[in-house]
Amino acid sequence: MKVSELGEFGLIELFEKILGSPGDEVLVGIGDDAAAWRSDDQIQIATTDALIENVHFTLGNTSWRELGWKALAVNLSDIAAMGGRPRYALVSLGLPGDTEVESLVELYEGMAELSRLYNVAVIGGDVVAAPLVMLSPAIMGTAENILTRSAATPGERIAVTGLLGASAAGLVMLQRGLKFDDKTVSSLREAHVKPHPRPLEGQILMRNEVKAAIDISDGLVSDLEKLCKASGVGARLFTEDIPVHPMVRTAFKEASLNLALSGGEDYELLFTGSMEVIAKVKGLMPCPVTVIGEITSNEPGIVRLFDKHGNEVKLEGEGWEHFAPRNANKYR
Amino acid sequence: MKVSELGEFGLIELFEKILGSPGDEVLVGIGDDAAAWRSDDQIQIATTDALIENVHFTLGNTSWRELGWKALAVNLSDIAAMGGRPRYALVSLGLPGDTEVESLVELYEGMAELSRLYNVAVIGGDVVAAPLVMLSPAIMGTAENILTRSAATPGERIAVTGLLGASAAGLVMLQRGLKFDDKTVSSLREAHVKPHPRPLEGQILMRNEVKAAIDISDGLVSDLEKLCKASGVGARLFTEDIPVHPMVRTAFKEASLNLALSGGEDYELLFTGSMEVIAKVKGLMPCPVTVIGEITSNEPGIVRLFDKHGNEVKLEGEGWEHFAPRNANKYR
Repeated sequence: MKVSELGEFGLIELFEKILGSPGDEVLVGIGDDAAAWRSDDQIQIATTDALIENVHFTLGNTSWRELGWKALAVNLSDIAAMGGRPRYALVSLGLPGDTEVESLVELYEGMAELSRLYNVAVIGGDVVAAPLVMLSPAIMGTAENILTRSAATPGERIAVTGLLGASAAGLVMLQRGLKFDDKTVSSLREAHVKPHPRPLEGQILMRNEVKAAIDISDGLVSDLEKLCKASGVGARLFTEDIPVHPMVRTAFKEASLNLALSGGEDYELLFTGSMEVIAKVKGLMPCPVTVIGEITSNEPGIVRLFDKHGNEVKLEGEGWEHFAPRNANKYR
Repeated sequence: MKVSELGEFGLIELFEKILGSPGDEVLVGIGDDAAAWRSDDQIQIATTDALIENVHFTLGNTSWRELGWKALAVNLSDIAAMGGRPRYALVSLGLPGDTEVESLVELYEGMAELSRLYNVAVIGGDVVAAPLVMLSPAIMGTAENILTRSAATPGERIAVTGLLGASAAGLVMLQRGLKFDDKTVSSLREAHVKPHPRPLEGQILMRNEVKAAIDISDGLVSDLEKLCKASGVGARLFTEDIPVHPMVRTAFKEASLNLALSGGEDYELLFTGSMEVIAKVKGLMPCPVTVIGEITSNEPGIVRLFDKHGNEVKLEGEGWEHFAPRNANKYR
């Protein structure tokens, strides 16, 4: 069987089986946003996400500076989804030998910009020759407690930070050369190439009785399915309540809901909690928090969508799963 | 200027400049074998080294199982060079979609084999589509104290664990299709594709007053130069004392010394200490320890080689520096 037939999540399950149990100090192993283990008084958290040229980005659409920012941002987002405080990064970098040093300076300036803003220090890494550009940062953080994908319980509400769909809309715009007004073009582009992860927001969730969270990288529905599967629960989403980015609504009209539901790369936090917990968290957050659905006890791993009339609607297209083009989002 | 002209070490210095100072809790940042920071009572250590297909390995010479082993082994070796106890690994993996799942099973079995032997748990990672195979593990460990490249002082002796040259000899044999007896073929091959890092030995060094160490990945002389440069010292090596692997001596005759001096990928530990410290350490080590030279106060960063008559000799070929083919080891 080929890797592309088994799919990313099939592979991860396979790896877990081969590697066996990691020992008692490990709080979260393979399969969540990041790994976590106990060390002295703290919990240590670590994650890695690779970006490969022409798979995750093209240098035509993304500047080197943006690439540096984004490579760290997507990893920071996984620490945020665990409720952790990101601390240190290692950057493993593969480059063709004829890359201009000036490009590398920009790449690292992009990383330095993010690292100052989010207070993360890049303290090591590796740089090797490769036929194309590849970045594989690892970020390490700490937490007093962690949010996991597996802690959602029936009856909880589902909420999301920020607004959705702008990153995928930006990608579609760049790929298809769509024309909009200048402000829309720059906002959608920035949403895609320079996403802002939510580590502070993740820490607020962690300190205020939220237990389950995941970041939106593959797409709202796809990531909610993962959370539901890990928690052994189902979910209902109300499409009317999805906080679609208003610029995406204006620019993409009927397609905007789909971009918000399955576009991916929003790097917002999706979490669950009681009405009271979510109301409290909402008051503390520096960003919008929207209740978009509820956790159910039936049909584990299944997410159902309902419109404002209470009628079930089907999602067109799905999340972005590596190696499984049959499931790939139609925009990619 | 192209990346290949600046070279790996020029790049690392540049990155360090752009990223700025990482803060007080960081004990070792960019430029050593691994990064280290203080956390509660312990020191945390983390490192990442990428392996790219057709740059660091070919699937013709290396089985998937061996590749899994080696990818973790080379990273473990960096933790060993800091005197740390390796604990957890994340594996970032890029793969063509038509890779056979059976190959992946072998890859992870190779990792699982090493992880059981060295008591390291693979607890997370990432798997993405890529046009060629790339592995970028990150390994995290802990230590009470650390060995660094920058702690060597004039008057200390230089010592090395194990025997040298077998990995490079194995690579030359594989690349040129050289014929030897079966035992030599399998030993040299194994030295190259399944190296054994020295984390326990590194911990013995750390607990017994050794302060400076580096692992031999690029080549004995090249890595000693790095240690000397970081410590602001020079070094003399006595070629007669280099523990060349006897099989390499027999198979490669006069070329064997050069393989041991500059072949690289031995993943042995090179360290410094007083005669007394080295004698004590030698008694505690489960492997050979050989004194091969001494640290001097003149000519920082310069390593000079002397033969048994006390005559200076010049090294043919140099260590393996990415992006700088003019310096690349002639065997690669």
